[in-house]
Amino acid sequence: MRLVRFGAPGEEKPGLIDDEHVLRDLSHEIDDIAGSVLSRDGLAHLASLDPKSLPKADPSHRLGPPVGRIGHFLGIGRNYAEHAKETGAETPTQPLLFSKAPSAIGGPHDDIIMPKDATKLDYEAEIAIVIGEEALYVSEAEAMDHVAGFCLCNDVTERTFQKDRGGQFIKGKSSPGFGPLGPWLVTKDRIEDPQAFDIWLNVNGEPRQKGTSADMIFSFATLVSHISHFMKLMPGDVITTGTPAGVGAGMNPPRFLQVGDIVTLGASGLGEQRLVVVERKS
Amino acid sequence: MRLVRFGAPGEEKPGLIDDEHVLRDLSHEIDDIAGSVLSRDGLAHLASLDPKSLPKADPSHRLGPPVGRIGHFLGIGRNYAEHAKETGAETPTQPLLFSKAPSAIGGPHDDIIMPKDATKLDYEAEIAIVIGEEALYVSEAEAMDHVAGFCLCNDVTERTFQKDRGGQFIKGKSSPGFGPLGPWLVTKDRIEDPQAFDIWLNVNGEPRQKGTSADMIFSFATLVSHISHFMKLMPGDVITTGTPAGVGAGMNPPRFLQVGDIVTLGASGLGEQRLVVVERKS
Repeated sequence: MRLVRFGAPGEEKPGLIDDEHVLRDLSHEIDDIAGSVLSRDGLAHLASLDPKSLPKADPSHRLGPPVGRIGHFLGIGRNYAEHAKETGAETPTQPLLFSKAPSAIGGPHDDIIMPKDATKLDYEAEIAIVIGEEALYVSEAEAMDHVAGFCLCNDVTERTFQKDRGGQFIKGKSSPGFGPLGPWLVTKDRIEDPQAFDIWLNVNGEPRQKGTSADMIFSFATLVSHISHFMKLMPGDVITTGTPAGVGAGMNPPRFLQVGDIVTLGASGLGEQRLVVVERKS
Repeated sequence: MRLVRFGAPGEEKPGLIDDEHVLRDLSHEIDDIAGSVLSRDGLAHLASLDPKSLPKADPSHRLGPPVGRIGHFLGIGRNYAEHAKETGAETPTQPLLFSKAPSAIGGPHDDIIMPKDATKLDYEAEIAIVIGEEALYVSEAEAMDHVAGFCLCNDVTERTFQKDRGGQFIKGKSSPGFGPLGPWLVTKDRIEDPQAFDIWLNVNGEPRQKGTSADMIFSFATLVSHISHFMKLMPGDVITTGTPAGVGAGMNPPRFLQVGDIVTLGASGLGEQRLVVVERKS
């Protein structure tokens, strides 16, 4: 299934995109794409519905992030060797885990807001995992049983905030608009091989990133298992899993995002995002 | 007011401790101590109630964390000069921000669970800020207007996970039981000077930490203002603000927590925690 949340920010309704690309309203079935709806049983219930029996919804609605009430928004640094190289850092020998503020999360066509004092605004096209079942001390073999599905994420980053403001990545990963997710959550059953997603990102139409999840240093299963040894992952937690080479900071000379830039990105089966970099309003 | 949440984990009801130390049930007034209940208007509504009109509740109930649906659980590293010195690190010139998993949060008398493969389990007695109003780009002068109140926190940490497992603190700050909060949230109006909290922590009755928030390098107002320049803080976000000297890692030789140890801690006006270190059950 391709699950979505549509409507104004903070008032999104749950829905799905059927096989004929029609937006269907799920709000009579579930309150949100969140929490226990993402469990095996919750998704099995949704899969048992006949999409044609669900009301059609106006396809011009804004799409929000495809998961609601995200409890923990995690990210992985330097998970593609070519990207690790372009950052000038060593290739990690274990997953580099950081977090992003949940208040940074937005929809796939929302604006990227230029933060106050930002000078090095950058993009990172990534595949995000959505957790469906609690995971604590799970093995790599069991890990994918705890995943509901995947969605596209732009792990928007301000490089000065990330690196020069006190030592942890979180300050550079968390401004409003720094976590566009979606357009949809694709449930795991619809993905033949998650380690074969093509990923791309353009700025103003110019190709910048082009990669494949086949090149991830740590696979989705390895990441879920590894993280579950340091915390309990909960349904609705989102882990964005690192970006391929081609970020602005890695170019020579570096090329950072400017107000007015249009960032488009996509991944095979996971849809596309179109994000405009805008000035802060207040 | 002293606000609490009482009952079994995940099923806590909202309550308050009145001036005669009686637990009163607030569940007919509000659904939880969370979100908009923590706003100025929400707290003004609670303050307008006559505590004596509220049903008394059984005081033997477990106390949970005094805030529900915590969206973002943030911490500050090395915010007391003597503690920075004992860690062997430099005194920070700007707040060192990290995050803890929301799934680590527990009540003031819950167990500290020894994580798998833990060898350096440590304690950190701290004062936590609870955010009441959204805060984005707020000045130091405005910052406290966005704070609902304060509570006690033990920022439990596994030092190997924190320092030797990939470079960010989060892995050492997030295991289940690593975030005991409470016993209560004291609203800001009840605190004469937040920069004058006494803080202490004992292990098996032996004094280990004894400090005062007067010694914080970055004040509560500075922290809220600073963080609000990197993310939007939301009602119900919790920021634990750093620990005084005396952690186990800072002793010579270091003394880490062992199964069976009893950790007690407290702060003036914020009550006490009593936590037993236990083995994992699964």
